[in-house]
Amino acid sequence: MSLLTEPRSETVDLGPAAALSCRECGQRYPLSPIFACTDCFGPLEIAYDLPTGQPEELRRRIEAGPNSIWRYAPLLPVPADVAGKPNLNPGGTPLVRADRLAAELGVTGELHVKDDSGNPTHSFKDRVVACAVEAARAFGFTTLSCSSTGNLAGAVGAAAARAGLRSCVFIPHDLEQAKVTAAAVYGGELVGIEGSYDDVNRFCSELIGDPAGEDWGFVNVNLRPYYAEGSKTLAYEICEQLGWRLPDQLVVPIASGSQLTKIDKALRELIALGLVEDKPYKIFGAQAEGCSPVSQAFKAGQDVIRPVRPATIAKSLAIGNPADGPYVLDIARRTGGAVEDVTDEQIVAAIKLLARTEGIFAETAGGVTVGVTRKLLEDGVLDPSLTTVVLNTGEGLKTLDAVSPTTSPTAVIRPDLDAFRAAGLG
Amino acid sequence: MSLLTEPRSETVDLGPAAALSCRECGQRYPLSPIFACTDCFGPLEIAYDLPTGQPEELRRRIEAGPNSIWRYAPLLPVPADVAGKPNLNPGGTPLVRADRLAAELGVTGELHVKDDSGNPTHSFKDRVVACAVEAARAFGFTTLSCSSTGNLAGAVGAAAARAGLRSCVFIPHDLEQAKVTAAAVYGGELVGIEGSYDDVNRFCSELIGDPAGEDWGFVNVNLRPYYAEGSKTLAYEICEQLGWRLPDQLVVPIASGSQLTKIDKALRELIALGLVEDKPYKIFGAQAEGCSPVSQAFKAGQDVIRPVRPATIAKSLAIGNPADGPYVLDIARRTGGAVEDVTDEQIVAAIKLLARTEGIFAETAGGVTVGVTRKLLEDGVLDPSLTTVVLNTGEGLKTLDAVSPTTSPTAVIRPDLDAFRAAGLG
Repeated sequence: MSLLTEPRSETVDLGPAAALSCRECGQRYPLSPIFACTDCFGPLEIAYDLPTGQPEELRRRIEAGPNSIWRYAPLLPVPADVAGKPNLNPGGTPLVRADRLAAELGVTGELHVKDDSGNPTHSFKDRVVACAVEAARAFGFTTLSCSSTGNLAGAVGAAAARAGLRSCVFIPHDLEQAKVTAAAVYGGELVGIEGSYDDVNRFCSELIGDPAGEDWGFVNVNLRPYYAEGSKTLAYEICEQLGWRLPDQLVVPIASGSQLTKIDKALRELIALGLVEDKPYKIFGAQAEGCSPVSQAFKAGQDVIRPVRPATIAKSLAIGNPADGPYVLDIARRTGGAVEDVTDEQIVAAIKLLARTEGIFAETAGGVTVGVTRKLLEDGVLDPSLTTVVLNTGEGLKTLDAVSPTTSPTAVIRPDLDAFRAAGLG
Repeated sequence: MSLLTEPRSETVDLGPAAALSCRECGQRYPLSPIFACTDCFGPLEIAYDLPTGQPEELRRRIEAGPNSIWRYAPLLPVPADVAGKPNLNPGGTPLVRADRLAAELGVTGELHVKDDSGNPTHSFKDRVVACAVEAARAFGFTTLSCSSTGNLAGAVGAAAARAGLRSCVFIPHDLEQAKVTAAAVYGGELVGIEGSYDDVNRFCSELIGDPAGEDWGFVNVNLRPYYAEGSKTLAYEICEQLGWRLPDQLVVPIASGSQLTKIDKALRELIALGLVEDKPYKIFGAQAEGCSPVSQAFKAGQDVIRPVRPATIAKSLAIGNPADGPYVLDIARRTGGAVEDVTDEQIVAAIKLLARTEGIFAETAGGVTVGVTRKLLEDGVLDPSLTTVVLNTGEGLKTLDAVSPTTSPTAVIRPDLDAFRAAGLG
């Protein structure tokens, strides 16, 4: 098992990344392709030597950087020359001031949507995969791999193509043709596994422990500590786009929970580095009712997440046993936030609300965050007078099927003006 | 007919736009929602008062502007405060240094792909529609409209939603559900017309001349002179991204031909303004064989475009009677370029080549430009030693059907290591 893999090198250059550190017991390990503590089996994350005590210089350095996540290279586990290597240069996505959405929701403060559909393969996964690619290069992996049913497959295929790495993506054998096409087009290996998504994951774990997988970087398994850090850039960008200011409230989707925990980590880093004023912020987690184990635990006041079998249109959030769920509960409680869920109907209504008011066509995960935002406002949990940022982490074109059943032309008419007027359109 | 419409105002503020000017006879008109010369029926375009004689100041002003097309507001028919109005802020899309594609094509100079799938609705149409929206505001139009079978429908729906304008998009009644959904989601009127796309267009022309259409801005009809200028920003961005340098060769898709003519116009403006060095450049036009009237005319050495009935998978380029075709021929000949076409099979192969080498999943129009680039290199028409920019104007997720028949998993296996090895994957 990779848990026992010896570190490949103690001198890898991943910029400010100093070591791996166990989130549970604090045990430190040299930077290497491992993901769990050999002592307590807790998850490993990156420990940094960050450039403290010089906020003005750091801010200038960031602002002079490229319009991509690499402007934050001094805060990421990547080499300093990362932007010069062939990669998809994700990030730099719009923070949209959503005044029309705010008006409909009764928000009187600033409401913003962080629209991550602007990434190269149109989801936030490009951020995390870009960091995994740098770790793969550092550790000498020649094949980039993952299991996926959607966004991650395309992100890995595209990133490997640009970087000149081999890729091998594992999918359930019965995945829809549209998703197969969107992953296969990048020309890497795409392997259908006869079985469920759980079978795919079990097989990947087996492969990591086998000599056949020796030179393979699984972005969200043996490269997970590096990969996960990419989500920090969402928070960095939001604060910089707000004029180096913390939002008061953030609404973040929960799949594994990793993204939400990294956003919290990034906000605390910005405070510690003096890049933003130290003031309270609240983080709210959003789930689909059909896969809401964290929301259920939050509402029940429990610390333990009870796994569920997902049944929701929000497939990119459909993780029934979210690894970082307990940390999400901690963060929601510590910051004074909450975790809430919405039904599939509310998700579709929220997708349409966001599209109608702001011209942003979100994937189902964006419907979850906007729907939860609406619900939390109605319930008086979100404060409508504060500065709130809602995340849209993907593109509506990828989940057309969720919206299609409820969309149709408003009218169908003969091509003449009488018919036009008769339809009440004139 | 709108040809005879009196100018609404002689004092509209559209920044440096001074007047409309007939491309054929030079007759000038005040800025107004008209699109053809009343004297000779030639197309109208924008005449500017541009800030000549101060290139360093203009360059600094542009570089200090937002990361969207609005950094070029001093060169566009838009008010100076345009970036502060609610709009989709298109542009700022990546110019990708395509070294791996270059290696496969035998290009020894710099090869770049301008990837316009990074726009808000993932095609270059966001650029032109954003300019049309400003004209609509200036002329007091309350409804934004167009006929469309694809990219434009979404771009107009989204832009109107963000701007708080009503929208009404006309489509053939038998459009595929996926395209209906991607247009209808923005909540504007979406009207199916019983008939062909030509019937849709005829009906729109009727509506423009009718009192019912009085407050309607049809982005590519009565707002066309303003709309078309948005394409200039592709050329501005390319040159700025090259370090204020003209490329030697550009490969541009041809639908109506408008985009190619505006790119040429923009390059000449940059030279005239002193923003780039005055040196030769060549523009190459790209069509699909199944809709190649301009390519046919170019190869036959003719000046007249013979209309065709389109039959190609590159539907966003399927205009059988391209209005700006004669101007495209002029430009290709004047600059020493060419016009070429590729088969549907070559388009699909080129989409896959670009995805495999650079991780860019282009729509069919991008397959056309990459395919034509390959063909022109093989034929010795493009010089492989020069700096070449190839345009990808849209997103592969929108034309999945073109690629799906030729994509499948590379293998389907049982979830065990023996099967993995037996498939030759280990």
